[in-house]
Amino acid sequence: MDTCSLEGAISGLIESYSEFNSQSVDELEEEPSPLEFMRYVALNRPFVVRGGCSHWLATKRWSAGYLEDRMSSARINVAITPHGNADAIVTGSSGIEYFVKPLEVQEPFSTFLKDIRQQENTCGDSGLVKYAQTRESQQCKENDNLRGEYFLLSGDVERDIAWARIALEKEPDAVNLWIGNSKSVTALHKDNYENIYCQIIGSKYFTLLSPLEVACVGERNFRSATYVKDKGGKGLRIEEDEGGQEIPFPTWDPDRPEIRPTKFSPLGKPLRVKLNAGDMLYLPALWWELYWMNPRG
Amino acid sequence: MDTCSLEGAISGLIESYSEFNSQSVDELEEEPSPLEFMRYVALNRPFVVRGGCSHWLATKRWSAGYLEDRMSSARINVAITPHGNADAIVTGSSGIEYFVKPLEVQEPFSTFLKDIRQQENTCGDSGLVKYAQTRESQQCKENDNLRGEYFLLSGDVERDIAWARIALEKEPDAVNLWIGNSKSVTALHKDNYENIYCQIIGSKYFTLLSPLEVACVGERNFRSATYVKDKGGKGLRIEEDEGGQEIPFPTWDPDRPEIRPTKFSPLGKPLRVKLNAGDMLYLPALWWELYWMNPRG
Repeated sequence: MDTCSLEGAISGLIESYSEFNSQSVDELEEEPSPLEFMRYVALNRPFVVRGGCSHWLATKRWSAGYLEDRMSSARINVAITPHGNADAIVTGSSGIEYFVKPLEVQEPFSTFLKDIRQQENTCGDSGLVKYAQTRESQQCKENDNLRGEYFLLSGDVERDIAWARIALEKEPDAVNLWIGNSKSVTALHKDNYENIYCQIIGSKYFTLLSPLEVACVGERNFRSATYVKDKGGKGLRIEEDEGGQEIPFPTWDPDRPEIRPTKFSPLGKPLRVKLNAGDMLYLPALWWELYWMNPRG
Repeated sequence: MDTCSLEGAISGLIESYSEFNSQSVDELEEEPSPLEFMRYVALNRPFVVRGGCSHWLATKRWSAGYLEDRMSSARINVAITPHGNADAIVTGSSGIEYFVKPLEVQEPFSTFLKDIRQQENTCGDSGLVKYAQTRESQQCKENDNLRGEYFLLSGDVERDIAWARIALEKEPDAVNLWIGNSKSVTALHKDNYENIYCQIIGSKYFTLLSPLEVACVGERNFRSATYVKDKGGKGLRIEEDEGGQEIPFPTWDPDRPEIRPTKFSPLGKPLRVKLNAGDMLYLPALWWELYWMNPRG
């Protein structure tokens, strides 16, 4: 197949996919049955359940005060970046573009919570951005922080999501809690897992692309690097990882489509959906996603 | 992407698919629930239900005598070919390869049945091969012959297959009966429909390739033609269809892999399965299939 007909075939595939599929994320008003869920798995399509986790204790109880109270004695893992751009492509001082991971520190939950609340209330550039997450590590593929460092909160969250457990015949591989403010943005990326996002406090804005739109995202290999503390200063600098293998990562951002488009990017039809507190989003494995959040809802 | 890396990517895709999937068709000992069925739909994988239609009246009652009795007065549509190769690529006298459709005639069911039984009992080349089917036509996309010309037999067959109807939220688009002898072979082809084959009498041998192995089958466009009666003689000749559009069709046969292979054909891993009387096969839409039958089981 020559280059021209290959390009035509890829364009045709992306265009047919948009044509045959909805341009919005399906919205359910109640939790699906395992069979209804499995129909979405078969179609490889996301959906939202409005109010799907509104009955959880977490959704009813959690507030900054409650979390601080429960977690007061705990130390947690915190990711720190200069601009809220964890796990993203950043140009280093050498001019080389790297896939850059955040600086990770352990700190008291109360310190973290104070900092992200204070920053949320500050206008303009307010210094380093913190985000609570637990990265996948070599030791522990399935990060699973809710049953780990947030164990003290795990009683407020359902043990699993019955319709997904029954349909997939599997307990959750991991249950993760993320806490951040509106300064954190997650770059376009994909996961190998079937994901169900449950919004507990505030809201989250998702932009999604199907795996079939891979030619739109311009994946390239990047050397990996990590933010480290700048000697003497209070800032961070990028340090290339030693013996690091290259990481494939998208170069196109569907929310800033004019930057680094591939010739197929204009054909991409991103789906956008907002999760409010109490909503759930099923995102099939290997879909592309980016999101940012508004902690105030 | 240059040609070399494209070929590498396609080879890698086919090899990974074989590596991650079973090299045989799953066998169930009882009918699946709608949810169990939907898991196979989600995986896009075929399965067999051993004895899945063994309780049908058709499986219990049908024999040559019973069919003749019920259908005695009926005329049916019969496909006739020189070598049992309906809807296959055949080289015409001009040296051009065509996608050739069978000669279609209407005849009494009893004549058809006598002929295919007689031929089954004849050794060697025994003349033209008959096969009862109803081709998809412009007028009627969903051929659906059991509820049409075989209406007199339709009471012996379940109205639908509950687990598929419930899972897919759809009545069957079409219910088709095929009757033939061991001289008929169906060339590798694909359908746009989710298919459930129910073996009523005899056995059928399937060879299957997943849609992902498309690069193995060497699809090409062929002019379409039809077998017509040779003037004067008793034989058939190929006549190109007028104003016929070109038909895309595979050129590789996984059961005769040395003929017309593509460079990817050696990577194809055909699945093979035999259906006995009373067995069902779920074949997902767009899988490649070929089959031949043994009316004696």
